[in-house]
Amino acid sequence: MSENQIEMQEQVSQLLHFLKNEEMPEFRAKFLDFHVYEQGQFYQSLSKEERQKMYCYLSPKEIADMFDVIEEDNEEVSEYIAEMNPQYVADMLGEMYTDNAVDILSQLSKSRQTKYLRLMKEEEAREVKELLHYEEDTAGSIMATEYVSIVANQTVRSAMHLLKREAKVAETIYYVYVVDASNRLVGVISLRDLIINEDDTMIADIMNERVISVQVDEDQEDIAKTVRDYDFLALPVTDDQDYLLGIVTVDDIIDVIDDEAASDYSGLAGVNIEVVDENPWKAASKRLPWLITLLFLGMSTATLISHYEALVSKASILAVFISLITGTAGNAGTQSLAVAVRRIATNENNNTSFFHLVFSEVLTGIVTGAITGVTIMLIVGFWQHNFMLGFVIGMAMLCAITVANLAGSLIPMLMDRLGFDPAVASGPFITTLSDLTSVLIYFSIASIFMHYFIHH
Amino acid sequence: MSENQIEMQEQVSQLLHFLKNEEMPEFRAKFLDFHVYEQGQFYQSLSKEERQKMYCYLSPKEIADMFDVIEEDNEEVSEYIAEMNPQYVADMLGEMYTDNAVDILSQLSKSRQTKYLRLMKEEEAREVKELLHYEEDTAGSIMATEYVSIVANQTVRSAMHLLKREAKVAETIYYVYVVDASNRLVGVISLRDLIINEDDTMIADIMNERVISVQVDEDQEDIAKTVRDYDFLALPVTDDQDYLLGIVTVDDIIDVIDDEAASDYSGLAGVNIEVVDENPWKAASKRLPWLITLLFLGMSTATLISHYEALVSKASILAVFISLITGTAGNAGTQSLAVAVRRIATNENNNTSFFHLVFSEVLTGIVTGAITGVTIMLIVGFWQHNFMLGFVIGMAMLCAITVANLAGSLIPMLMDRLGFDPAVASGPFITTLSDLTSVLIYFSIASIFMHYFIHH
Repeated sequence: MSENQIEMQEQVSQLLHFLKNEEMPEFRAKFLDFHVYEQGQFYQSLSKEERQKMYCYLSPKEIADMFDVIEEDNEEVSEYIAEMNPQYVADMLGEMYTDNAVDILSQLSKSRQTKYLRLMKEEEAREVKELLHYEEDTAGSIMATEYVSIVANQTVRSAMHLLKREAKVAETIYYVYVVDASNRLVGVISLRDLIINEDDTMIADIMNERVISVQVDEDQEDIAKTVRDYDFLALPVTDDQDYLLGIVTVDDIIDVIDDEAASDYSGLAGVNIEVVDENPWKAASKRLPWLITLLFLGMSTATLISHYEALVSKASILAVFISLITGTAGNAGTQSLAVAVRRIATNENNNTSFFHLVFSEVLTGIVTGAITGVTIMLIVGFWQHNFMLGFVIGMAMLCAITVANLAGSLIPMLMDRLGFDPAVASGPFITTLSDLTSVLIYFSIASIFMHYFIHH
Repeated sequence: MSENQIEMQEQVSQLLHFLKNEEMPEFRAKFLDFHVYEQGQFYQSLSKEERQKMYCYLSPKEIADMFDVIEEDNEEVSEYIAEMNPQYVADMLGEMYTDNAVDILSQLSKSRQTKYLRLMKEEEAREVKELLHYEEDTAGSIMATEYVSIVANQTVRSAMHLLKREAKVAETIYYVYVVDASNRLVGVISLRDLIINEDDTMIADIMNERVISVQVDEDQEDIAKTVRDYDFLALPVTDDQDYLLGIVTVDDIIDVIDDEAASDYSGLAGVNIEVVDENPWKAASKRLPWLITLLFLGMSTATLISHYEALVSKASILAVFISLITGTAGNAGTQSLAVAVRRIATNENNNTSFFHLVFSEVLTGIVTGAITGVTIMLIVGFWQHNFMLGFVIGMAMLCAITVANLAGSLIPMLMDRLGFDPAVASGPFITTLSDLTSVLIYFSIASIFMHYFIHH
């Protein structure tokens, strides 16, 4: 890759040279030779003045192709749009795939949306408006309407003829969807099958009638799972009457998988890793709300311990094991949490699996807790020459781990039930909560047995 | 989907009925009508006896198509292979895409590998053997050799003719790679372009000469990034002389993205979430090694506190804040860790960014630590009517958070430098380590200022 990178850098500096010297034909030739992704990288590295030159040199269609690639989660896009001539924006949006045009518009204010939609061609504006209404993270919000559909009652030759005509605008031509007279989805045929079969074959004879499709209101995570399992390059989207509405393509699915993974990871860590802040002030301002919230939860643990201050001052040895018990229970709780979040994401979540998972995590907690508890009992017993103290620490460990596993699996399950993203029940939250329960368990057990392990 | 699911269940029970009553023609007709993924789901739900009937009813080629989909990370595959006639296995492997055949073989012992390779057709065995040598997680290990290549000096018509012939065996026909006489990659053309252009057009005139390709030893994560950025359906794999060796397709890339996400998530949680153990004993046995290791690390924290036992017995109030300080620092360290692991995964990791990231995390730690520290100082000051104690807790908080951020960013960075997966530096490890440093900081500061906050 490093050779490629050096070559790329040379190309980029040439391009920049053409732009600065206003050598438009040379700039156009070189720029349009770039892959759209590279065009996007170049464009985003420019100053506002340089970008504005580009809007003069390139047609809305040419800029649209590039925007089809850079629109994904791009905070600067609304800025770029603002610096363009409104009619240019409208034309560009019209040339983009509908799903991407919708992505851009949904980042803008309602009034700006209306402005651009009014300037767009009626037909194009109508398609975009329809998609704008679908809820976020559903099939409707990520589907494109540029698919190829044919009727069953024709030959491969005529289908290929139609495909040739549509190939320039369709988002994918590798699947062709077969519909009846009222646009109901009745079959699918891949371009591969069209190519393999003889020209005179009827589509009805070779199409696959068992079409896997998704409903327009289906969650994007479920769609990603279907694409992954079936190795599809695109999936048709229908309404509940089987009318074909659009397609979701594999590149959008990759973005969904990436986003979901990043959001699960962010949840577990209690920090949004998708936005990288170079500036420590900015980074701190994003992490503080969560840290301060957890600090207050941590204060309840401190308050709880303060109730046992008399006990601690009599048996200061108890203070030695606070962090060991809270730490180990926190680790166990984090493990349970991760397993539960993963299970919710991959399994259908019915009642059986709900209780089954929590029950299984609690059992796992008892087993790990018992073994960890016996280990620490022996260590403390020999170290402090006090097996009664070892017993107290071991018992506390067993109970604290079991409760942490219960919390780690139950809380994300309940959040999922209540319609929240279970990944929001972050690792830091579970560990901080588990600190509280662990301390409560530890000092309760210590109070009960205090007369047996304190030697006066 | 639920309607689909009910229909699917009916189909499956019919299929099972045919299999049990040994109605082979009916079984074949219904089974082959299933999507290969559904075939795989059905196959995996069967008993050994039922599966063995399937090997009689279906040809190695038909089973191969199904195995192309279920081979991914399937612990049972080696069991399935063992129950088949060895020649059947060899024929099946020969019919699979090379990358998938290699996946299966690499799960078997060397002696079983040799047995099957010897039974395979010479040409097929040779291709598989070549791929078996590539290191895990590189382009070589996930590429297939079933691509379509043409020479530039021909028309679209003749290229389409060749494509028709190859369409049945190629893993993708949607990109056609253009090579010179010695199989060096010189261009690429999509099937879409072949279809759009006139039959008499020369390939040399319409092919894209700026081919984005990956080296055979390139890491699969980098390949995933390229596919994602450029929205490719497949990428050509070459050696350092530009000879075309194979292709990586988008369905393999989705598996890579999934695996990497799951392994990052597992790392952060300190538990492998990719293997779901229903059995609590088994689950516990997998989690215990990590918990016990961390328990011993936690014991050093306990030992450290025990050195301060005299201090604690004089000022038992100190015990109240142990879990608050270790907990908050642990949360901050986990945030740093997640940001660092993500940065390592997405950025090129050069020297500047190495120091830059650690420096930026430490600064973020100072800012968050200062604000959290002042907050807790005020709370403790008013709560305990002891601002000197508040100052000690606040100072400890500031230092502990800063050190936790340092550890959270530095450790994964160093692990990456030393060639380990940075995600192995898990959240539980960082929090347990941060417990140790936090306690050390806390009691050191408390010792220094003890005469100011203990009222006798």
